[in-house]
Amino acid sequence: MQSIKTDVLIIGGSAAGIVAAQAGKSQYPDKEFLVVRKEKHVLVPCAIPYLFKTLDSTRQNIIPDEPLKNAGIKLKIAEITSIDRQNKTCKTDDETEITYDKLIMATGSTPIIPGWLKGASLENVYTIPKNKEYLDRFIQDLKNFKKIVIIGAGFIGVEISDELTKAGKEVTLVEIMPHILSAAFDPEIAFPAKNILEKRGTKIKTGTGVKEILGAKKVESVLLDSGEKQEADAVILSMGYRPDTGLAKESGLKLTDTGFIETDKHMRTIDPDIFAAGDCAQKKNLITQKPAPIMLASTARRESTIVAMNLYGPSAANNGTIPVFSTSIGETAFGAAGLIETFAKKESIDIITGTFEGIDKHPGKLPNTNKQFVKLTASTDGIILGAQVIGGQSTGELTNLASFIIQNKTTLNTLITAQIGTHPLLTASPIAYPLIKAAQAASKKLT
Amino acid sequence: MQSIKTDVLIIGGSAAGIVAAQAGKSQYPDKEFLVVRKEKHVLVPCAIPYLFKTLDSTRQNIIPDEPLKNAGIKLKIAEITSIDRQNKTCKTDDETEITYDKLIMATGSTPIIPGWLKGASLENVYTIPKNKEYLDRFIQDLKNFKKIVIIGAGFIGVEISDELTKAGKEVTLVEIMPHILSAAFDPEIAFPAKNILEKRGTKIKTGTGVKEILGAKKVESVLLDSGEKQEADAVILSMGYRPDTGLAKESGLKLTDTGFIETDKHMRTIDPDIFAAGDCAQKKNLITQKPAPIMLASTARRESTIVAMNLYGPSAANNGTIPVFSTSIGETAFGAAGLIETFAKKESIDIITGTFEGIDKHPGKLPNTNKQFVKLTASTDGIILGAQVIGGQSTGELTNLASFIIQNKTTLNTLITAQIGTHPLLTASPIAYPLIKAAQAASKKLT
Repeated sequence: MQSIKTDVLIIGGSAAGIVAAQAGKSQYPDKEFLVVRKEKHVLVPCAIPYLFKTLDSTRQNIIPDEPLKNAGIKLKIAEITSIDRQNKTCKTDDETEITYDKLIMATGSTPIIPGWLKGASLENVYTIPKNKEYLDRFIQDLKNFKKIVIIGAGFIGVEISDELTKAGKEVTLVEIMPHILSAAFDPEIAFPAKNILEKRGTKIKTGTGVKEILGAKKVESVLLDSGEKQEADAVILSMGYRPDTGLAKESGLKLTDTGFIETDKHMRTIDPDIFAAGDCAQKKNLITQKPAPIMLASTARRESTIVAMNLYGPSAANNGTIPVFSTSIGETAFGAAGLIETFAKKESIDIITGTFEGIDKHPGKLPNTNKQFVKLTASTDGIILGAQVIGGQSTGELTNLASFIIQNKTTLNTLITAQIGTHPLLTASPIAYPLIKAAQAASKKLT
Repeated sequence: MQSIKTDVLIIGGSAAGIVAAQAGKSQYPDKEFLVVRKEKHVLVPCAIPYLFKTLDSTRQNIIPDEPLKNAGIKLKIAEITSIDRQNKTCKTDDETEITYDKLIMATGSTPIIPGWLKGASLENVYTIPKNKEYLDRFIQDLKNFKKIVIIGAGFIGVEISDELTKAGKEVTLVEIMPHILSAAFDPEIAFPAKNILEKRGTKIKTGTGVKEILGAKKVESVLLDSGEKQEADAVILSMGYRPDTGLAKESGLKLTDTGFIETDKHMRTIDPDIFAAGDCAQKKNLITQKPAPIMLASTARRESTIVAMNLYGPSAANNGTIPVFSTSIGETAFGAAGLIETFAKKESIDIITGTFEGIDKHPGKLPNTNKQFVKLTASTDGIILGAQVIGGQSTGELTNLASFIIQNKTTLNTLITAQIGTHPLLTASPIAYPLIKAAQAASKKLT
């Protein structure tokens, strides 16, 4: 058994682990930081759907290790098999004992394969793990498949559907909810997304679950709740991810009801020398203060940054986060931040809404002008709680503007009288800037 | 003499006038709003540079009157020739007397033709007024010109240079300052802008003023301070705009030293029933609290909205604004918000800066990925004061995000721990999001 000693040990080398190491080392340059990860290569997690057509191979989607090394961060490829919290050591699968002073759990998440789903272990049933070797094999296998059924129309399901359709496959996307992307968007945003996806060639079946995956040895078809049988050469399960917290549990760290590592507002676990960040760590919604299973690399970034600031004494608090999503289907992009109307209703939160549809350049005769639609939700006293956007390529950053406005507990009137900048080729017109026009529409409903 | 009566009279029908009328009518639906403007058609002001190539004609750049009419706002095409504040009436050039209860001055601005510039009245010397008939004639005249000298490399000068170059003209852009766009950007942002503009074919002469425009009757050449003579079939003066405040002055309203209509923080002039908004109205910088000649349609929008809220009693305050600019030269866009380093130095304001260069999609192998550079300025206690961006088509909204962050007096740490959303096709990566990485770089300089 080899022995290593480090000041800060980070378990996991995806977004959470990388940012924790970089931000930590930047703040504490004299401390030694060691990242231990299982994977030889780390994939850009959010770009995995684009491996199926837009990017040529996983090689184009690797997060390079050089920035870590250049920052003086050590890296070890191995699996941590146990944590001895008493002695502050970890053991690895290559017979190494690592002594740490501070430990950051950044173990991420793995695809959900529901136990109730019969046929899930048939040949040619796939999930989308963040694993280069698995995905390389899958991409190789795909050459033999024509008909593909994708179960679950969240972002991963939707994005892969479009990519595989572009790659010439016959794709059927099955979703038990009445709309695609229904965890992120209200129906009036999800519906146009479905229309575009369908126009681009994906067959979509919403409002129906899956009973069983059928086949002798290999997948042959998918039996839907509706009784319909959908032929399939392969099935992709995109039914969400669960936090990868087996190691945390075995080492006696406390987990939440839904299996995330419990932390305080400084992102510390019940062990004051162990922190957690990213998909494996507990999250709560800033607005509702309830548990929120937001598993995004951008959320991981935020949490890891907070962990890095708190390593040697509390300095930054995590008072909760908001979901901030965006995606693009063809030329049309969709974004959401904060509390959507559907979710407010479900939680019995009183809200007002305001919408506006304009264009994302001005005048509309300029080339590549897209429609831009904004829907805002606000509390009945005028605090902006949520935003949804349909638009062109500026949708991601416009959603980030909305996200900041929401986190800042901005009132409708503050937004309405804020200074925004406009340019014919880059934004909506100042007299019809949808984010502000939507705020004005909502503000008319204030009593 | 015909007589009309209205509750709210708005003089001027460009961005400031339109927004004042729309926001006012929306807030006070029972009041009568009348917009009086000189121009038969109103052009989208910021898109005027794009008339020279990208848009086919001024017809494609007209702000339609329907939204005003549909909102129940009255419109009259005439010039107001005098204001009788005592009797609260205005006279027009078509022999009409208009009685008002509240009056909004939204008279805009006109191009500067410096008195010292010899030869400015020669034939084929043009300015860029917001006037359809003038611009129609100019576009017609342009067919006869090959060599064009543009004097003044602000946004209008730069944008028209690129358009006329695209249209096949031989364009020379002359700027007395060492850099183009130097009122908006620090040298390290202005310099790449110059490089791109030059690569696209515009000849640029910075650091040299103009002595005289030479010619017998028509323009023949431009004599530079450097002694060089630049042949020219036509000259465009893009040397800035001055507030159009003759009417305000004649009616006894107070003007500032630099000729803007003086207002209080509720945008009221010295006459409590008369408001001013847009290019003609006084502005001050939110950060320095000093006069700031920011003449943008987006600034006009904000001011007019505030005026509308205050028409029948103070309800919204204007505590100052920040400049927010963006533009695009070819595929590369440039944005700035708030206090740039150059300006801070000039004003002896102590600042720290942070920069980061990344990419605007992730991974970089995705098609149409652009470099994204962000430079932040912050006070020495960590309040973010300014941002500059070089990037792709999301630059306008990213600049707006920065603008909101600055107006909100956000600290570097608040930005660093904020939740941003990311998507491979729409934004930078969460682990290298330039706005946040620049904040981290700046924050390392905090003592």
